[in-house]
Amino acid sequence: MVDTPTTLVERLLGQRVTLTLKDTRQMTGTLLGVDEHLNLVLDNADETTSEVSRHLGRVVLRGSNVVTLHAPQGTSAKVN
Amino acid sequence: MVDTPTTLVERLLGQRVTLTLKDTRQMTGTLLGVDEHLNLVLDNADETTSEVSRHLGRVVLRGSNVVTLHAPQGTSAKVN
Amino acid sequence: MVDTPTTLVERLLGQRVTLTLKDTRQMTGTLLGVDEHLNLVLDNADETTSEVSRHLGRVVLRGSNVVTLHAPQGTSAKVN
Amino acid sequence: MVDTPTTLVERLLGQRVTLTLKDTRQMTGTLLGVDEHLNLVLDNADETTSEVSRHLGRVVLRGSNVVTLHAPQGTSAKVN
Amino acid sequence: MVDTPTTLVERLLGQRVTLTLKDTRQMTGTLLGVDEHLNLVLDNADETTSEVSRHLGRVVLRGSNVVTLHAPQGTSAKVN
Amino acid sequence: MVDTPTTLVERLLGQRVTLTLKDTRQMTGTLLGVDEHLNLVLDNADETTSEVSRHLGRVVLRGSNVVTLHAPQGTSAKVN
Amino acid sequence: MVDTPTTLVERLLGQRVTLTLKDTRQMTGTLLGVDEHLNLVLDNADETTSEVSRHLGRVVLRGSNVVTLHAPQGTSAKVN
Repeated sequence: MVDTPTTLVERLLGQRVTLTLKDTRQMTGTLLGVDEHLNLVLDNADETTSEVSRHLGRVVLRGSNVVTLHAPQGTSAKVN
Repeated sequence: MVDTPTTLVERLLGQRVTLTLKDTRQMTGTLLGVDEHLNLVLDNADETTSEVSRHLGRVVLRGSNVVTLHAPQGTSAKVN
Repeated sequence: MVDTPTTLVERLLGQRVTLTLKDTRQMTGTLLGVDEHLNLVLDNADETTSEVSRHLGRVVLRGSNVVTLHAPQGTSAKVN
Repeated sequence: MVDTPTTLVERLLGQRVTLTLKDTRQMTGTLLGVDEHLNLVLDNADETTSEVSRHLGRVVLRGSNVVTLHAPQGTSAKVN
Repeated sequence: MVDTPTTLVERLLGQRVTLTLKDTRQMTGTLLGVDEHLNLVLDNADETTSEVSRHLGRVVLRGSNVVTLHAPQGTSAKVN
Repeated sequence: MVDTPTTLVERLLGQRVTLTLKDTRQMTGTLLGVDEHLNLVLDNADETTSEVSRHLGRVVLRGSNVVTLHAPQGTSAKVN
Repeated sequence: MVDTPTTLVERLLGQRVTLTLKDTRQMTGTLLGVDEHLNLVLDNADETTSEVSRHLGRVVLRGSNVVTLHAPQGTSAKVN
């Protein structure tokens, strides 16, 4: 039942994941790679800010800018 | 009577915990994993900002963004 | 007469301490644990911001967010 | 199918890449070099902010300021 | 004539010193301890912000929040 | 064709370079020295902010404040 | 002709130097000591902000707050 964070991230390889970055951008893509610094590679990635969306293709992200990573299936939002 | 911070976090595995992040978001979920950097895995997680709540499912959080972690049972708030 | 910071913190185990965090929150609780990164465990903790107070129970705090730690007995404030 | 972030960046040597920096500047140039800190060298680089574009020629970038790196072919944007 | 920063700080043990912190607070107290991270212990400490002064007693300060440390005797200020 | 960032910076020794710092200042001078942290020495340096220019002579810069370094020949700007 | 940053700083021992800190304060004093983190000791130091000047005497500065260090002789400023 216990997963280390690294184990969980590696188990998500090949799946669509959503990242929240420190600058509040979100990025969704297929997880292609990860290393021990939580540097990440996404394929077919889309970046979303409060203002625009961009399709970026293959992207390398520096781990130090990542706040959270989750598999977006089933995510639902409600206004507080 | 003395707990190291790591020991306490590991003892909370399987329980619901609430995190406060540097960007003031709160995240509540079942603690599934932790490593020596205080990177964390939450299951069945809900994210709350001052504006919206979102259900995120399974989430990996980078420890460098975490300010506090506590077990939310019995938390109570009063306006100053 | 000379205390290293670590020695002093360990001597405060079991006592009520007050922390000031980088985000200006204050947290007061019984010091249960500490490690070499100044990660801390407080029991029966109360969090205070300029707006609200919350009772949090047992809390783990990441050392990198801590600015100061002191034993609050005898603290007194005056307006400048 | 799995790429480490370093492997992917090295495979982009000689290609045009676009970087987003922490201060929100973007920089596009031919990737000439990279090291283990994700320090980067771009040739024939153009810097773009929300206000101005500048041609900078050969540029060294400190990795700690880089948020994302991608190959810009096929990038498309839409207003949210 | 040459002092390393560590040597000078250790020579100030037992004396009143004033610290400026990153969040612009000043703290004055008797220097009781220091370690290699410039974590500090002050006794009989007073904290001053632009708005209030507080007597804090014995305080542990995380070195990463300290900007400057000086012995306050003879400090004088003039408006620019 | 591949340059590591360090190799490129060392090859610029003796040439005029322009640095952009995190606080948005620019500094132009003759590159006299560099170390593995990208700490830099400039000679005959001029500092430019949006408001003033200053001649500073010989300057040591902490690498952690540097965002980009480039050889300014041929730099051209246009308003977006 | 090549100076490492450390070599240059050590050669300035005993001379008046001016530091710019991350919080935009400037500090001028006689350089008494330095270590490998660029922690610095100034003697007979004067601190200048946009609003006030203060004489601080002997000061220890944490290297992580230093942006630039230069010998102020011959510095000249002009409004852009």
